[in-house]
Amino acid sequence: MTTAVTADSLVSRAADLDAADPLRHCRERFLLPEGTTYLDGNSLGALPAAVPDAMRDAVHRQWGTGLIGSWFGGDAEWWGLPERLGDRVGALLGAAPGQTVVGDSTSVQIFNTLTAAARLRPNRRLLLTDAGHFPTDAYLADSVGEMLGLEVRRVPAAQLREALEADGDRTAVVAFPAVDFATGERWDMPGLTAAAHAAGALVVWDLCHAAGALELQLDAWDVDFAVGCTYKYLSGGPGAPAFAYAARAHHAMMRQPLTGWTGHADPFAMRGTYEGAAGIGRARIGTPTVLSMLALEAAIGAFDGVDLATLRAQSLSLTGFFIECCDALLGGRGFEIVTPREPERRGSQVTLRHPDAVKLVPAAAERGVVGDKREPDLLRYGFNALYNTHADAVRAATTLAELT
Amino acid sequence: MTTAVTADSLVSRAADLDAADPLRHCRERFLLPEGTTYLDGNSLGALPAAVPDAMRDAVHRQWGTGLIGSWFGGDAEWWGLPERLGDRVGALLGAAPGQTVVGDSTSVQIFNTLTAAARLRPNRRLLLTDAGHFPTDAYLADSVGEMLGLEVRRVPAAQLREALEADGDRTAVVAFPAVDFATGERWDMPGLTAAAHAAGALVVWDLCHAAGALELQLDAWDVDFAVGCTYKYLSGGPGAPAFAYAARAHHAMMRQPLTGWTGHADPFAMRGTYEGAAGIGRARIGTPTVLSMLALEAAIGAFDGVDLATLRAQSLSLTGFFIECCDALLGGRGFEIVTPREPERRGSQVTLRHPDAVKLVPAAAERGVVGDKREPDLLRYGFNALYNTHADAVRAATTLAELT
Repeated sequence: MTTAVTADSLVSRAADLDAADPLRHCRERFLLPEGTTYLDGNSLGALPAAVPDAMRDAVHRQWGTGLIGSWFGGDAEWWGLPERLGDRVGALLGAAPGQTVVGDSTSVQIFNTLTAAARLRPNRRLLLTDAGHFPTDAYLADSVGEMLGLEVRRVPAAQLREALEADGDRTAVVAFPAVDFATGERWDMPGLTAAAHAAGALVVWDLCHAAGALELQLDAWDVDFAVGCTYKYLSGGPGAPAFAYAARAHHAMMRQPLTGWTGHADPFAMRGTYEGAAGIGRARIGTPTVLSMLALEAAIGAFDGVDLATLRAQSLSLTGFFIECCDALLGGRGFEIVTPREPERRGSQVTLRHPDAVKLVPAAAERGVVGDKREPDLLRYGFNALYNTHADAVRAATTLAELT
Repeated sequence: MTTAVTADSLVSRAADLDAADPLRHCRERFLLPEGTTYLDGNSLGALPAAVPDAMRDAVHRQWGTGLIGSWFGGDAEWWGLPERLGDRVGALLGAAPGQTVVGDSTSVQIFNTLTAAARLRPNRRLLLTDAGHFPTDAYLADSVGEMLGLEVRRVPAAQLREALEADGDRTAVVAFPAVDFATGERWDMPGLTAAAHAAGALVVWDLCHAAGALELQLDAWDVDFAVGCTYKYLSGGPGAPAFAYAARAHHAMMRQPLTGWTGHADPFAMRGTYEGAAGIGRARIGTPTVLSMLALEAAIGAFDGVDLATLRAQSLSLTGFFIECCDALLGGRGFEIVTPREPERRGSQVTLRHPDAVKLVPAAAERGVVGDKREPDLLRYGFNALYNTHADAVRAATTLAELT
């Protein structure tokens, strides 16, 4: 006797799981269009409900009325945004205050941070970076390599330990993503950080697909540097500013190449030569993009009172259940599940492979299930435990079944 | 018989000048707090009236409802913002379309542009930059110098021609501001560009205090590169994104170090190695900060139909009249006018020196006249011809007289 898993039974299980979801009160913290199953928060997070009022206040009161006075006066205090927001983001990364700044784009932060890290190992001429890294990480590693005269070697994350065994003593910096942007595979951050340190190298982690989704412990794992964006699981808005983390132990010696005036020890003294601020402030670059930062500040309130272990457990429940749904409903339809099935090897997205991916993703979106594609044949569905549900997972798999 | 210029006669002349102002219809394009004379638009421009609605639309409709689809779909087309906005800014710089991008901070654009320029003169090892340049320009010139192995020499703008005569054949890049941030002095951009070219060097102009205030002609003056911010006379909002101009003739050969993925020739092919886009697109860096950019896009509409020659003439009328008011009302009170009196040597601000500047600026602000200070002894009053009036000028001088 076999027990076929039916769509109906999955819908019923989803309802039970969603009823028991300890984060279900967080869903009302987002304004999602009715009828849409939004599984593209790994690319652009949904709109947090607190953002519209915050932006109205930012424009009318802080800018329009407070004018220049809002940089330092009243409750606006724009000047402090990079560090103030940095601490808010840092709390979601397992970073004690005073080690994270927010600003600029991830690309800019990668350049600044890779260079600062490499300069801390001046006698080592090798930079190891992920062969499957997101393109901007790869491009900027090459650029840093050219400017500093480093060899840049691309290594699959799964082979990093071997590479360190062979060439660790020449390796200045190891730069990898916490979660692969294409496959959704999660790498062993604490283990690989320890391996890099054992070889005397420093690590720079890209947390774009991890911040706000995983239970990160940057301080406890002894991470040196990390960067990431805030527009995916942190739902900070389109192109929201990036963040950079630098462990306190490096603050005194680190030298970022983007020596913008706001990172100066005494910026308004307007001195002619650069002297970086004593703490994480030296990782500040130019004048902060206030409006985008204030949107992020409001958005990040959606994490208030959320325990990261609970968040991670819910994320795994959602992605695990989606894999179950795909197994049950998509068999024999040309799909392959690319993301690892072991929970500890998953981020918060599930990637499927299908020869018609490029057509299926927009077709599903027309039916209200929004994900994204990566050419030539990947479908990516990201789950944000603050607003996605197990019902979303069934609907997505059902829709893909209907289309194939 | 002497004719003393009285405050009353200045008020009367101001009224006549304002009644004849060809740009007086532009004042309603800004939302200024009642009772405030805002003369700090050279630091943060006032709120353009079109911004609040644009931001509401950006947040609710484009982000909240359009979600990921707004990057390429509908009328949002966020992806195109850097070039689309670049062309809008370029039109105010005398730049034909396709040579300007908007994004990131001025500091980041300085680094990217100085490096790209220096790489076009690989056999020259000297970078000449303004001894009185804004600090971030000085710091980033030093950083570029360190990374590329260039000597960075600080030269007062007034001595640039002599420096070029002495060492022009070793000079790769000449990096100066169009207008001095502290004194408001305007330098001879076309003449100094020609002098640099005669020596075989390239120019990088910082237009922070010029864009939206002067009648710039980057194409006609044969400028190589320029950068600037959009939050001063362009009123794009606090920390609004910067711009970078690169003359078309350099597009094929220029190599920016910040090789972010959005500047790739085919960004969504996600290739492992960088190949810059064919045109100005290669000056793009990371993911654009959409909300800040959409505020700027709405703001720049305040220039619609404004002829730059008229704008410049009005700006000179305002600053010239303010100098007259200061001469008439501030004599014997310890003030010195720092900004040159010759119109062609002025930007759009007037800087005064007074031993009590640090106290006078906030005291005047309390009486509704907002400017800013630069320690130890400078008062800066910036005039934006789109919203400032000759009445503002009299009021500012009168207020300073009352306080001294």
